[in-house]
Amino acid sequence: MLYEKTKKKILKNTLFYKVGQRTREYQDTLIKPKGSLGVLEDISIRLALMTGELKYKIVNKEVIIMCGDHGIADYGVSAYPKEVTKQMACAYLRGGAGASVFARANGAGLSVIDIGIEGDVKYPGLKIRKIREGTRDFTQGPAMTLEETIQAIEVGISETEIVINNGAHIIAPGEMGIGNTTASSALLAAFSGLVPEEAVGRGSLINDTTLKRKINIIRKGLEINKPDINKPLEVLAKMGGLEIAGIVGIIMACAANRIPVVIDGFIASVAALTAKFIAPGCERFMFASHISAEKPHIKTLEILGLKALLDLRMRLGEATGAVLAMQIIQTASMVICEMDSFETGGVTIADTKLELTLI
Amino acid sequence: MLYEKTKKKILKNTLFYKVGQRTREYQDTLIKPKGSLGVLEDISIRLALMTGELKYKIVNKEVIIMCGDHGIADYGVSAYPKEVTKQMACAYLRGGAGASVFARANGAGLSVIDIGIEGDVKYPGLKIRKIREGTRDFTQGPAMTLEETIQAIEVGISETEIVINNGAHIIAPGEMGIGNTTASSALLAAFSGLVPEEAVGRGSLINDTTLKRKINIIRKGLEINKPDINKPLEVLAKMGGLEIAGIVGIIMACAANRIPVVIDGFIASVAALTAKFIAPGCERFMFASHISAEKPHIKTLEILGLKALLDLRMRLGEATGAVLAMQIIQTASMVICEMDSFETGGVTIADTKLELTLI
Repeated sequence: MLYEKTKKKILKNTLFYKVGQRTREYQDTLIKPKGSLGVLEDISIRLALMTGELKYKIVNKEVIIMCGDHGIADYGVSAYPKEVTKQMACAYLRGGAGASVFARANGAGLSVIDIGIEGDVKYPGLKIRKIREGTRDFTQGPAMTLEETIQAIEVGISETEIVINNGAHIIAPGEMGIGNTTASSALLAAFSGLVPEEAVGRGSLINDTTLKRKINIIRKGLEINKPDINKPLEVLAKMGGLEIAGIVGIIMACAANRIPVVIDGFIASVAALTAKFIAPGCERFMFASHISAEKPHIKTLEILGLKALLDLRMRLGEATGAVLAMQIIQTASMVICEMDSFETGGVTIADTKLELTLI
Repeated sequence: MLYEKTKKKILKNTLFYKVGQRTREYQDTLIKPKGSLGVLEDISIRLALMTGELKYKIVNKEVIIMCGDHGIADYGVSAYPKEVTKQMACAYLRGGAGASVFARANGAGLSVIDIGIEGDVKYPGLKIRKIREGTRDFTQGPAMTLEETIQAIEVGISETEIVINNGAHIIAPGEMGIGNTTASSALLAAFSGLVPEEAVGRGSLINDTTLKRKINIIRKGLEINKPDINKPLEVLAKMGGLEIAGIVGIIMACAANRIPVVIDGFIASVAALTAKFIAPGCERFMFASHISAEKPHIKTLEILGLKALLDLRMRLGEATGAVLAMQIIQTASMVICEMDSFETGGVTIADTKLELTLI
């Protein structure tokens, strides 16, 4: 089964520490003061650790957006009605949504997958891999069965492997699903032990009354489902979403194939946390792109042990933050692949007597 | 005279507050939760204020690197010898330097200008606009005459106007000049009243002995030259550099022509501060790109009143941080120009009862 096979591949992926060390040494031969590219040097070293290549060259950047609906959206936990999931899935492909513009502005490809939108939706280019029409209401029992959850993860894996086989060097998963900050906060509460009040934010900018309702719904969901973090796949099934499971699959496929994966905002980060619980080791292939304005995001990144590249008060989702970060990661990759060294570039090396020794 | 004419144009440039307000209102009609693009929304509003256009479209991004030498470099204030200025000017055009790779990775054009390199230097594409072969030693008197300083500013203005006439929509000035963090720290001390100890950093990564020498040289320069901030052009002449004056000219030309200018790290920010003193109003056309690891940079941005977009511990100069920021600013511009509105995009608008009212 694809899910089990992918988990095994991730476990087998030992990292190339020697290559990481060699990349660090190589950085210091390039025509710039040592360490002067700061975080971009760290990125190139992480790329080497992930891929096993001294100079990993990123040419093709890809965004995969998973779209799915949520049972709990019927309670009005978002400022937007459910049909917006469907409308946005089409908007991505028409080219006028945030994700489309960000991808175009930064030269990234974009695929959109209906993994669980409620109702029929057709649009040229939209991939229909629907597991079911939205999740069940998690205040009444599990949002998905275990089988559906694995199916959704496998959609993520197989769609990502198609994109990888087509030449992607780095992938950013995105999501669309009205109600999915509620599902994500529920998952975060389950995995971290945070109380619902600490695990929620204002999502699409809800008012105090809606926020209180959101917290109550999460509390009720946790009481009914009693998620056990020793069974992370069950936690995902009980409180998660089809698009969140899809992103777990994207991340697993990247880790299994040694492809760097760029984590967007709150929802993608909760999917990343879930992936870390389900398939430990996944987190080594992740870059955190930005600190979302959605309050519990910082906490999520802390638990993941990732440091974000950007802090631009964004909170749109749709991989928009990840796309900006991919551009920076690609620049770091081009530095290590294309910059001259002091030897090849005809530049006089620093006087080590005058230079500070970095220990 | 070009210098005076440009100053007058900047003074005349009143800003389009109404357009800024309309851009903010227009942002709220786009298919995303209100304010969800955070800093990128603020950028689009600033672009409108700068240019007077509701939707300012950035297609062509340009980097202009000014290269010049410094008299005080002979004291060994850098870990690199003077000839590196010349070598790097060629490396930018050969394509293997940091600036070249960053520009290429992010689709920006690149011009390189010899405004004051010591010795003869020829390379295909290198523009020779040399005012003199390096500045004078500022511990013995002014680094430049007032006339040379204005000439260097005018090189910046005229070269920038060529780039603008060729279609640039946004410009990032970069610099190369061994010893120029020392000149920049001297200028910062003069303009801010900071003592030399607070105005210096480790530049190309110098050791404690070299740092102490750097501080002493700045102190001596300040004592000999007695810069008076009421005569900012004189301050620049006394303590600055040809490439710094060139950047002042680039910034002035951008402000005079309503073109956004993206300020790189410490040296470019000190040039920006100088431009603000020489031609007040310039700062309204600036974006601060990143927080450099060069210690006094944060202070410089504070005095400028600018908030940086990125914090990636970079300290290379050469407009590398500015290029990354230009890409984000371009993305913000494409959002305002190309995203669908709720009306045109067929997406249901938020329920205002559920939505938080932003005041």
